[in-house]
Order: sequence, then C-alpha cells, then structure tokens
Amino acid sequence: MSLNPIEVIKKKRNGGILTAEEIHYFITSYLGSSIPDYQMSSLLMAVYFQGLNDYETFSLINEFINSGQVVDLSGINKPKIDKHSTGGVGDKTSIILAPLLSSLDVAVPMVSGRGLGYTGGTLDKLESIPGFKVDLTIGEFKEILKKTNVCMMGQTDEVVPADKRIYALRDVTATIDNIGLITASIVSKKVAEGADGIVYDIKIGSGANIPDEKSSRELANKLLFATRKFGKKALAVLTDMNEPLGYAVGNWFEIEECISIMNPLAEKSSLSEDLFKVTITLAGAMLFLAGKCMSIEDGMDMAQENITNGQCYRKFIDMVKIQGGDTEFITNKQMYPKQQALAGMRSIQDGYISKLDARNFGLASVVLGCGRRKIEDKIDHTAGIIMNKKVGDQVNSGEIICGLFGANMEKVESARNILQKGIQVSNSKVGCINKIIEIID
Amino acid sequence: MSLNPIEVIKKKRNGGILTAEEIHYFITSYLGSSIPDYQMSSLLMAVYFQGLNDYETFSLINEFINSGQVVDLSGINKPKIDKHSTGGVGDKTSIILAPLLSSLDVAVPMVSGRGLGYTGGTLDKLESIPGFKVDLTIGEFKEILKKTNVCMMGQTDEVVPADKRIYALRDVTATIDNIGLITASIVSKKVAEGADGIVYDIKIGSGANIPDEKSSRELANKLLFATRKFGKKALAVLTDMNEPLGYAVGNWFEIEECISIMNPLAEKSSLSEDLFKVTITLAGAMLFLAGKCMSIEDGMDMAQENITNGQCYRKFIDMVKIQGGDTEFITNKQMYPKQQALAGMRSIQDGYISKLDARNFGLASVVLGCGRRKIEDKIDHTAGIIMNKKVGDQVNSGEIICGLFGANMEKVESARNILQKGIQVSNSKVGCINKIIEIID
Repeated sequence: MSLNPIEVIKKKRNGGILTAEEIHYFITSYLGSSIPDYQMSSLLMAVYFQGLNDYETFSLINEFINSGQVVDLSGINKPKIDKHSTGGVGDKTSIILAPLLSSLDVAVPMVSGRGLGYTGGTLDKLESIPGFKVDLTIGEFKEILKKTNVCMMGQTDEVVPADKRIYALRDVTATIDNIGLITASIVSKKVAEGADGIVYDIKIGSGANIPDEKSSRELANKLLFATRKFGKKALAVLTDMNEPLGYAVGNWFEIEECISIMNPLAEKSSLSEDLFKVTITLAGAMLFLAGKCMSIEDGMDMAQENITNGQCYRKFIDMVKIQGGDTEFITNKQMYPKQQALAGMRSIQDGYISKLDARNFGLASVVLGCGRRKIEDKIDHTAGIIMNKKVGDQVNSGEIICGLFGANMEKVESARNILQKGIQVSNSKVGCINKIIEIID
Repeated sequence: MSLNPIEVIKKKRNGGILTAEEIHYFITSYLGSSIPDYQMSSLLMAVYFQGLNDYETFSLINEFINSGQVVDLSGINKPKIDKHSTGGVGDKTSIILAPLLSSLDVAVPMVSGRGLGYTGGTLDKLESIPGFKVDLTIGEFKEILKKTNVCMMGQTDEVVPADKRIYALRDVTATIDNIGLITASIVSKKVAEGADGIVYDIKIGSGANIPDEKSSRELANKLLFATRKFGKKALAVLTDMNEPLGYAVGNWFEIEECISIMNPLAEKSSLSEDLFKVTITLAGAMLFLAGKCMSIEDGMDMAQENITNGQCYRKFIDMVKIQGGDTEFITNKQMYPKQQALAGMRSIQDGYISKLDARNFGLASVVLGCGRRKIEDKIDHTAGIIMNKKVGDQVNSGEIICGLFGANMEKVESARNILQKGIQVSNSKVGCINKIIEIID
C-alpha cells in the first residue's frame, strides 16, 4: 500500500509506532514540498502528545543527517570530541573547554548556537570579542581545526537542513518541548558535525530549558542511546541550573569571567568556583572519551593542570587570533567599551542568600539587551549582570547582591523588577548549591 | 498583553481553557491570513488531545457564524425546523422528512452535505433524480421555501466560510474526530441557516462516523447545549447504525425505497420497517419542536397519518418539480436506467441473519460507485446494494441475502469481497435490532 500523510499522522495520533519507512516518507516528502507545513505541524503536535520511542528517534535522526552534508574529519588524526549543553544562564563552559581540550591534544570541532529565549548562546558571547568570526564554511572550519586543534563556528545550512527547517516550524507551533524531538535535533547535528564523541551537559533547574529532573534524565538517556547507535562515544553530566553559573551573565562579562579563570595572572574570584568545577568535570569527561586518561577523575586533574600552567589561556589567545578576534581586548580588558546605566540590588536584611533564580536572571538579562526576544533583535554585548553573592553566601542589610548594566535606566529598572522576584535572603544558614548532580555513562 | 498564536497553541496544548478573546483572535487572524495553516493545524491537533469545553465550543461556533452570512428566515411566518444526521449507511430519512413536515405546515429549510467516506450524502441521493438542482443561492433557497414550505440545498460559501476552510484543513491533518470540533462544525451551520429548532439524529454503531456509544452521547449533549445557547430549540435521537437503515444502499435505490414508503399505492416491504420507524420518530420530534403537538408520540401519529393519506408523497412530487427534477422517473420508476453488472450474495447455511455490518455495506457501496474516495470522484447513481434480509430474519442455505449492482463485474466482485466479511448467519435464533436507542431532550 502506498503511504499517505494523513494515515501517518493518524497512526501517531492514535499512539502507534512509526516505521523507518513512514518516517523516511514523511521527512523526504516534506523536504520535497509534497507534504506541506500544515501536515508536518500536525504530526509534530501528535508527536508532542504521543512521544517517539528510541527507534523512531533513531529513524528521525537518520533522515535529518541524510538531508545534508556529513562533515568528514577523518583527515584529522586525533580524537575529536565535542560538548553540547542543553542551555542555561551564565553557562560559559564552552569558551574555556574548547581551548583547554585542544591544549591537551584533543581536536575540538565545536558547532554552537545563538541565544534565544532567556538562555545565552556561545556564538553571541564569542562575537562580543571584536572581530571574532563564527560564520564559517565547512571548508574554513576544517582548515582551522587542522591547524590549531580547535574551531568554534555557528550552524551552517550545509549540515542537517531538515532539522533547521523543522526546528523553525516547531518554534512557531509550540512543539519544541518534546524529549524525542529535542534528542533528534541535537544528535543529528552532533553526528553530522563529525566528532568521535560527545559529552552532554544536561542542565536541571529553573534556568534550564527543561527544568524538571525526571524529563532531564529521560533526555540524557535518549541522547546517550541515540548517539551510541551512530557509533559515537557519549557521556552525560547532569548539572544544576537553579542559580546562574559563575558570577557573570551577559556576553562580554562572561568572556571576562572566562579570562579570569584561564589567565594564570588574573585575580581569582570565589564566585567562579562552581563554573570552574563544572568546566573541569566536563573536561575530564571529554578527555576520558578521547582516551587520554583512565578515568574522568584523572582527566579532571589533567585539565586543572593545563589551566594552572597557562596552556589553556595561550590556546585561547591563539583561537581568538585565528578566528579574527582582536586579542588587545583580551589582554587589556579595560579597553572594552563600558555600559551607560547601572544599578545595584541591595539586601534589605542580614542573612544568607537562599535563592538567585536563574530564570529571573536570564529574563532580566534579555531585558538588559544580552539576548533576543525576536530572531532579528540586536544584542548589546556590554550589557549584563555581575553577581557579588551566590546562594549560601552571608549578606548584610544594605550590601549589594548584584549589579545590573544596560544602555539606559529604563532597561536597567525593568530588569531590576524582574530580578527582584528571583532573589531571596533567609535568616537561617543556607548551604551552597552542588552543581554536579550526576555523571551518566 | 497582546495575543500571540504560539501562546494560544501552548495554552491549549497544556490543557488550558481558551477565552472567547483568544478564540476570536485565532479564528479572525486565520481568516485574515496573519495566522498560517501550520499554526491552525497545530492548534487543531492540540484540541484533538485536550478537547474543548462547552464554553470554548460556544465561542468557536460564534466565530464560525460571524465569518459569513446568517440566513434570515423571519419573513416566513411558520415554525422552521431542520434535522441533522451524523451520517450512516442507507440513511435516507431526510428525503421523506422534508416533504412530510412541510405537508404538516412546518417550514423545512434543509441544508445537506455530500457523501465522503463510506456514509452516503443526501445531496447525492437527490441528484440521482434527473434534473434535481441542489446548488442554489440563499436567495433562491428562501424563495422556494416561502413558496412551498420546503427546500433542500447544498452548503454555500456564503454561510460559515470559516468552518468550510477549517474543515478542509482538519480533513488532511487527521483532526476530524474530536467531539468539540464536530459540534462546532455542525451547530454553526445549523444556527446560521436560520431554523428555529433542530432535531439531531445521532447514529451509533459500526456504520456511524462515531461508532461508540459513550462518545455519541457526549456529542448529543454538546450539540443540545450549544444549539440552545444560541436560542434554538433542539432534541437528539440516538439511533442504531450497526446494520444499514431500510433495504437499499445506493443513491437511486434509496430514492426508490423512499418512494415506496411515501406512495400510498406502492407495494410495501417489511424490510423498510426500521426506516419507517426512525423516520416517524424523527418527524414526531420535529413536530414537537415546531409546537404542533403536545408530545413526540402525538407528532408520530400526525406524521404517520400524512404518509398514509398521500399528503407527504404529493408534497414530495411538488418539491422535486420546483427544484427542477423530472417527476416522470418518480411515477414511472422502470424508466430509470439499469445497472450493467450484478451478483447475489447467497447464504451457505440455514439459520438466522446475525450480522449485516453497516460499515462493510458502506465500504462496498463506495467500491460499487455510490460514493467518493476523493472529492473529485464521479458518482454512479444506478449502483448499489439491495438487501433481501435484515438482522433477525430466517434464511435458508442458497437463499440470496442481498444483491450488488455496479457498472462492471470487477467492481461488483471487489464489493462482494468486502461485503462477505460483514455478513454472518447464526444457527440459533437472533432478534432484530431496535433502531431507536433513546430520545434525549
């Protein structure tokens, strides 16, 4: 019997399991325009309710990959390991991980995204470095990667165009948040981009795209299953995203925080300890996947060593240079343009910080200009939030908890209103948040 | 806050109740093309899973009605009562009810549909009468109705165009079978067509569009609630659709069966008793809504009387004449063209008919050419099935249970294969099927 789009939609709607043929038919007909957007969006909503099992997800990934080019990195005779985060607030580990791993002789082919919604994007952060170029062709990407072991670029239409088209449709039809569809979107990109192994950083908590732990664990397991089905190595690290990671939220502020960690001569802040811990853990996992060590713990030691000895920082400077960035701003941070308006959030009582809600920090940062509300919005690289306290820290009445920076007082004030609702001070002692929840292998 | 299509879809997806404003916004934006088909189909699939409550359904009906013209029948100084059936096999009651009610001084403004799928359509049956015209303007419809108390026409683009557009989208996105959406589609048409009261014939059983009793009862209650919310009187009759109604399936065959009931001089068949009973019950309910009698039972007596005395038949002849039909074929049935190929289904055992599955009869009739598989398919008015037995009837081995008629033996044979699976003969005595399940008021 010949396939028909209505019957495929109806089958999924009624809780059936789609065959590889049915998924192939639906995706290729959609790309060939014989199935219109309205039938695809109807199927996506049926999938939202009925889910995709591991084999349906695998078939969907296959179709996504086959819709475009698969990057061939076989010419690079080194382990090639990438990291993917499900997205959070103040999540800047990629900026450190890419040069760090490449300084340990691991190739890092890193394809990142832009911020949309309240979570930041690595590309926006990198572009806050004047001149830094992320829009590369696959040819340029491979060339840079071969030369320096590391390259950070944006998504290209050459790779998984089907995912790109369907993601855009999901975005406007309320069908983003489904574990099967999320898995297919992530894994297809990662597999097509040519890495040998991927470490997934799954964020859990108010500032994560998938806040609840149960769904996040389900996502972690699906990601590992699907990635391994394609012959790639994979590990998942569940990390906390109830408060922002590190002390900086905002594009250039986050680059600055990364520099303060990487530059051995820079002053260190105790407020970056969580960022450091998560970064080192992810690096340990990446080194383990690369076969550079016997355990993740050994890898963490190697990673820590290469930060302390400045190898990572030197690699970062090289990376910025080769991708067109102006390293003057890295070495002389005071040269960077300053934001116009600022305000401090002060505690109104003595006590301990019990909540710095990552979601509120994310939403406030978007209002300040760090992110986009619409795809065409322009980013203000100088805007952001600097935290002076983290959850568990003692605070006195009148002391500044965090500072807001924006282009004008209107933005700063409206960001302050959002932030206010996400900050709590308690009378009794509060512990700090453990950022590493679990490593799943 | 300004409304946004994604938020409305997300709200329904998450099980929220849409406000009248949200429904107004979504429908008018869709008709104004600022909301595309793919967002509408995504909302429809979310509604399929989450449903519409009575108030959401009411709001949707309101928007459908306001999208077009409301037929003003206030110039007709008589009760105006319509009947709507959810569709079945051999369901031909409208052909008798329209002239019958008008012969009892009730105006019958009847807007009917065409067959699609395995259930027949009243318009197709009427068009089997050579010359009979159902594509009328609202102006012609009102004029004929005023003149003769009765007019049967097809749907027009002037009335509820929103429903027409959305129904077409539902048809290709597997979102037809939802009680809320079905209710909105039916009630909006019936209210906009200007009747004062509507009797709903809700079919239950294998040959019904909604086979199960629970959903059918839910539909009945929703139809009554919504119709009354618009100030119209309403009753629902639940009737059985496990075997075809009457003895004929197929367009002209069904007209013939109606004539044999209406024409006092025609030979009567015991196989039409169920059709007669359902028709009389619906007529009683319509007369009761029209205020012509104190009870449905009284109305049934009045209806029976006007069939017996030939008033209904005379009115039918008038109706055919005024709508352009050739009455020669009504009075001389043998003039009608005959089908080319035929076959009889014979019992292979002595016993009692225990099953004549209406769904199989419907599917077989489509294969014979009585219905459409695609909207553009042409109908064969002479094709069909004539039953010699009904459920509960005794049958001898070798006796013909029913006869199939089609344009060629290929069609007849493939219809026969479908029909075979739907016919059962039992050794032990079987009761006949009671067609009236319940009257809901």
